Order: sequence, then C-alpha cells, then structure tokens
Amino acid sequence: MQDLQGSSRFDRRAVKVDEAARLVLEAVRTGGHEIVPLKRAAGRRLSEQMRASCDWPPFARSGLDGYAVRSADTAQASPQAPAALRVVYAVAAGELAPVAVEQGTAVRIMTGGAVPEGADAVVMLEQTEDAWEGGQPVVRVKRAAAPGQNIAPPGEEFRRGSLLAEAGALLRPGHLALLGTFGYANVPVFARPRVAVLATGAELLPVAAPLAPGSIRDSNSAMVAAMAEQSGAVALPLGRLADDRTTVVQALASALAQADIVVTTGGVSVGDYDIMAAVMHGLRSGEPDKDPSNEGSGQAGDRLLFNKVAMRPGSPTSAAIVQGKLLLALSGNPGACFVGFELFVRPAILHMQGASREAALPKVMTARLAASYEKGSPHERFVRTRLYVDQGMLHADPLAFGKSSMMASIPDAEGLIRIPAGPSGPRAGTLVDVLLL
Amino acid sequence: MQDLQGSSRFDRRAVKVDEAARLVLEAVRTGGHEIVPLKRAAGRRLSEQMRASCDWPPFARSGLDGYAVRSADTAQASPQAPAALRVVYAVAAGELAPVAVEQGTAVRIMTGGAVPEGADAVVMLEQTEDAWEGGQPVVRVKRAAAPGQNIAPPGEEFRRGSLLAEAGALLRPGHLALLGTFGYANVPVFARPRVAVLATGAELLPVAAPLAPGSIRDSNSAMVAAMAEQSGAVALPLGRLADDRTTVVQALASALAQADIVVTTGGVSVGDYDIMAAVMHGLRSGEPDKDPSNEGSGQAGDRLLFNKVAMRPGSPTSAAIVQGKLLLALSGNPGACFVGFELFVRPAILHMQGASREAALPKVMTARLAASYEKGSPHERFVRTRLYVDQGMLHADPLAFGKSSMMASIPDAEGLIRIPAGPSGPRAGTLVDVLLL
Repeated sequence: MQDLQGSSRFDRRAVKVDEAARLVLEAVRTGGHEIVPLKRAAGRRLSEQMRASCDWPPFARSGLDGYAVRSADTAQASPQAPAALRVVYAVAAGELAPVAVEQGTAVRIMTGGAVPEGADAVVMLEQTEDAWEGGQPVVRVKRAAAPGQNIAPPGEEFRRGSLLAEAGALLRPGHLALLGTFGYANVPVFARPRVAVLATGAELLPVAAPLAPGSIRDSNSAMVAAMAEQSGAVALPLGRLADDRTTVVQALASALAQADIVVTTGGVSVGDYDIMAAVMHGLRSGEPDKDPSNEGSGQAGDRLLFNKVAMRPGSPTSAAIVQGKLLLALSGNPGACFVGFELFVRPAILHMQGASREAALPKVMTARLAASYEKGSPHERFVRTRLYVDQGMLHADPLAFGKSSMMASIPDAEGLIRIPAGPSGPRAGTLVDVLLL
Repeated sequence: MQDLQGSSRFDRRAVKVDEAARLVLEAVRTGGHEIVPLKRAAGRRLSEQMRASCDWPPFARSGLDGYAVRSADTAQASPQAPAALRVVYAVAAGELAPVAVEQGTAVRIMTGGAVPEGADAVVMLEQTEDAWEGGQPVVRVKRAAAPGQNIAPPGEEFRRGSLLAEAGALLRPGHLALLGTFGYANVPVFARPRVAVLATGAELLPVAAPLAPGSIRDSNSAMVAAMAEQSGAVALPLGRLADDRTTVVQALASALAQADIVVTTGGVSVGDYDIMAAVMHGLRSGEPDKDPSNEGSGQAGDRLLFNKVAMRPGSPTSAAIVQGKLLLALSGNPGACFVGFELFVRPAILHMQGASREAALPKVMTARLAASYEKGSPHERFVRTRLYVDQGMLHADPLAFGKSSMMASIPDAEGLIRIPAGPSGPRAGTLVDVLLL
C-alpha cells in the first residue's frame, strides 16, 4: 500500500497532438552520414542532393530496332514506290558507327543504339523490307519518315547537373536506376538511427514463457522493434524491466548510451507501479536524483517534453530529452503503443534520416467514413481503420476491437481516422482525416 | 550484317496481360518453409495458419488504474454521499490478489491487472478519493459503478483456437504483437525465393565505369534486385552478359541452378542482337540445342509461356519454364522493365511466398484522371502516375517522361494507370483503373 498518491499523481498538463509532435521533431537532429553501395541503398535516405553527371541520353539514341536514315531521302516513299536505301553498316549495341549516313544510304541500328552522323530519323524494322540490289544490301522504306522520328536527342530526359533527388529522399528502386545510370556506384545516405526498445512491467513474461496467472507476455517489444526497422532504424530490443526505479534508471542510462532514441512501453499511466511516469516526473521537476546509481537523470540539459497528450488512446504518452537523446515512453496497451509510435516515434526516426518535418509526419488524406463512429469520450481520438476505394472515392471503415488494450485489429489497420475533440463522433458519409499507415 | 531476319523475326503471338500473368502464376509453386524468430518475422509470409493458444484476455482484466469493487456496494454512491469501501489489498502487476472483494471492500488494481474474485467493476482512480477511517485505508467512490465497468472479460478479444492470421499473410508489426501475445517465439514462414538478376547487352557498362561512346551503364540490375528484395525475395545480382548465345545460355544455366526465378533485362526485342529473344524462340520451337555447351535449353519440360504481351511498354516481355524454374525476360528499357516486373515478377515472387493468385497480383483501385491522356498507339498501356486524394476522391495525375526508355518518372510513380486497348485515351475526369505500386 506504499506510494498511494491518488488521482492527482504527477498532476499532468496535456499538450495537443500537433504540439507534441512538434516538440519531438524539434528535439531530434538529423543523424550522421555514410556511404553505401548502390545495390544496398534501397530503403535508405539520401544525405546529399544528387544531380545528373551528364546529359541524358548522352547521345542521340534510337528508340527502336530499325534503320537510321535521312528523312529527306524518304520524303516520296510509299508502299507502291518505296525508297531503296543502301545499307552501309549495321551498328552493334555499344558501338559508334564508323560511317555517316549520306544521301541514299541507311545504317541498321538497334534499340538504344547511337544514331550515326547524318541520320535524322529511325524507321522501325517492321516498316521496312530488306533486299539486294546490284549485289548490295538495301532497305526499302515504304513511308516518309518525319525528321527526329524515333530518336531521343541528347539531354532529352536530363541536362547535366539537373536534380535527380533531394537530400532526405527515400530511395526507391527507381532511384537506383537513376543513380546507376549516372555512375553512382556508391551513395551517400543518412545513418540508420539506433532505436533501443525496452518493455516495463512486472507482469511481463518473455514471449517463449508459459502464461502465469495474472501475467501476460511482452508483445510490444517485437511490434515496436519491427516498426522501428520499417522506419529505417536499427532496432535494439533490450528486453523487459521490472517496475523498480533503480533497475529502470540504470537500464535507461545503458540504453541511452548505445542508442539514438530510446523507446519504452508501459509504466506511463497513473498507477502505483508506473515507473516511467515517475522517471519522467523527476525530469520535469528538475530535481537532481540523489541515488548514486542513477546515471540516467538529473544531467544538465535533461528535460521533459511532455507527459500527457490530449488524445485517445495513449494520453499518458511521454517524451523527454535525456543525455541529449530522445526518450519516448509509450503506453503499454498495444493499441495505444501503436498509435504513439506512428504519431511520435516514426516521425522522429524519419527526421533523423533527413526527412523534412513535414515529410516525417504521417501522411494525411481525406476519406468518406463508411460507418458512424460513436465516441467514448470528448477527446481527440485516433481510430484504426481499413481503407478501400469505390468509384474513385476513398472510404474509411473503422475496425472493430479498437479499444486501446486490444490488438486484434492492429495488423489489419491501414490508417488511423483522426476524430477531432468534441462531444460526438462523425456520422457515416462525412469526410474525415485519415493518417496513412 | 549476319542474322538479318527482317520484321517477321520470331513471328510472335501477343497474349493479353491478364493471360500472361495467369500463365506465370500457374507456372510457379509456393516455396519451402522455415522457422524464424518472431523478432525477425516482419515482412515475411506465414506458411501456416496461426491460431490463438488461449482465450484473450486470459483473465478478467482491469482496463485502467483504480479500484476493483462490487458494483452493488456503490449503487447509492453520490458526490455528497460517497460509498466508503475498505481497501483490503493492492494487487501488483502480474500478481493475483490473495483475497476476494467482499461486501464493503475494494482492492486497488492497475491497468492490465487481474480483477480479484468477487469484484464485478473497476472504478477509475481519478473518480475516487483515498482516506483513512478507523485506522484503516478506505476508498471513497462518488458514483455508482455499473456491473462489468472497466473490466475486459476473459476471451473478450479472442477465443482459444480462433484465427490470428491465414497462411500466406504478410506479417506486419501488429502481427508480431499478436503472435507474441500467444507465445509464438518462433514463426513458420515461407522461404524467401531466390531471384537471380542478369542484364544483357553489349552496350552495358558497370555502374562504376566512365561512359564510353555509344555505351550506357547497367542501371536495371540494381533496380530489379531492389524490387525483388522489396517483394520478399533474396536477390542474386549476377552481372552483365554480352550478346553472345553461348555465354548467355551458360550464364542462364548457372543462374537457374542457384535461383528459384531468373530475371533478365534486355535482349527481348526484334533486333539482331536480341539474344534473349533467340533463346526464348529456341524453347518455343522445341528444337533440342545442338551446342554441347548449352545446358540451359532443350531439356524435357522446358517451355515458352509467352514471348509477346499485348501492352505498352514492354510488349516483348517473355517468360518460360527452363529446368523447372521460371525465367522472365524483361525489356531493357527501364520503364518497360519496371512495368514488366510489377505485372509478372512481383506476383510470381509473392505467390511463391504463399500469397493467393489474387493477392499476388497488383492491387487495383479506381481513380479520377487528373489530365487527359493521349495514347501513342491502340495497345493497352500502363502509364506511370502520381496519386493524390482531394475531398476523399482519389486522383491519378500521369507523370511526364513516361516513354518506355525514360526513367526520370519511375521513382515518383505511385501507380500505373491501366489504359485499355483502343484508339483514344481517356479524358480528364474519367475514372480509370490504377495498379498500386
């Protein structure tokens, strides 16, 4: 019965969601850089703006297999009276023709081949006929070719120095094609932030353990670690902690020393054993911790960012700067933990990899609500939802099992409907904001 | 000038896109299984259906921090006349209360705690007041509690044996929470298919090489390998091949021996040096190859699936079964290569990991076309597009630089607009089908 502190424990002031996200993003700095081979660069974020190293295409390039000709030579061509052009060379891929196309001649050319001097059009193979005239190979062209036809002029797609991708851009497979084209065999990217994951709670068992009465398994650590990796981080799952202040403070100090961000789950509520709430409270009050084993708090610069957010689920979600690192304390309820990660942890991880503050936040879309939503409380609320498109209209269909303690609907969630604070929920058919997952 | 075969070379019959995808999916079988630790399971696909190993929650669970009470004891409670209940125990997380809640008593309990025998409601801490009466701790409850209030009954979320996820399901972070909850520290998943990637074309230089006249760098290999990894495969980038039949056939045989799927880029068109087209043609004609160095064709069961698809870009995209493995020959044009991968390679990789044929195909949505699209040809066409939502309506805004040879717009593409065969393209404002990327 120790530590009975009643309902006013920690007397928290709730900040709005957007304000909380702003505080988190302002608290993290973009991380270090590294160079990775192009083939390992997908999913990473550029640490430098990349530019075209030459015009592209670098030479006048044939768009298809056919014959490079002078369009003037074909001006009178028709199926009845094809233009017969002497074939003076067949240019292989990767080769430059050693001869020019002069009046009355043509050069056979392949898709992507360099169009020889003198030619100003390429005629598709399928629209020609090969023949021999006077012991010489000729090609018969049955239609007038337009100047420039089937030729990509140098620099059509990129001018030397033009932007390929901005710093902070997430590298998708198509970027690798672009960067490879311009000779970037190695790519400068932001380092992957190291995200330590700690679960708190005496009730937590390892996943492999049989259930004991009153206990549950630690299911948050695997989820949070996977979400961190999905965001580009290296996850460091550091296990479970009992609700003991000394143990927790030591574990946090060790986690903070090896990680860029520390994420805890559980212990943030108003309960007697909510150790993270107590640790966060110690920061806010600014009292140096007297416990000599406590290396994790009281340091100059340590500060609480918030210890309550005006939202459901996850209102006790807390954030602080400790030892210069971001400490995010998420709820132990799986649903609230999930929402807290999407709203605050993922943006922090993305921003550390160069995403702008705006790009780091969840992408918001409007969608038509497929079913009325009854609110349980006046607070702003984030509701797990499926998304589907019907006749071009995006619909959000809230998932059942949406209580903060429930995880049944987490795997199916494609978005979070953002329901504003207020006494009643939106009716079916109204437009709602949805955070994409 | 050798090998001049004119426009009728290989005399190909085009199959429709859906038919080509069906042929590919029918040709691959789901792959082997393996067991991975839960923490490494995100992004993998289940090889077995997973079920709840017990009811969930496993015990009557408190939804918040407060007091477990008998609701009958609070029936007359009001702020003016609160019910005073003697606090007989404070149950810690993970613990079972050794006492029952009897008439006139309460047990302090934390979020997630097991509700003690006798109690049928939990009163929120914030709605109570702690006090001492007669030397004993009491809690004053100011409102009547409803039976069942703030208690999740056992099995509310899952019944033992109920389905958690189907075989073939892509494991998202939320699945890890579910699986961890039910004690699955190791998870049965489909093996990652091994996808060999080979680029053909004498014009191709390594990415690190300086450009030579008429040459370009191999940019497709990195893109295709990244797309394969993104689909869950292990990519084996095997490099570049000159347009020499013996070399190519040997390299294919070696690739087929070590991979589940072999993807080539380039050499599928009608040009003189289009070696993949020739290899595919050899399969179709069923002629055993006389070249003793040729281990890669002529084997019993080898067969062409298709060597032309009625679409733009990528019409020469070809597929075959060789040595029992899927060989997919994509166009060397980056845009066509990209489309061919999305339509045929990614579905094959997903299906090998247990995705149903329907789930393996690209997800299609309808969207309103933001700008009229002028078709260059009557063929079915896949157009790279950005997607955005305005007032709930999904819009597809076709990207510039969409020619098959162009890659500038590949990184920005969020979808492929599917424009049906026909003489003219759709006008702005019409609904179009979009394949999501």
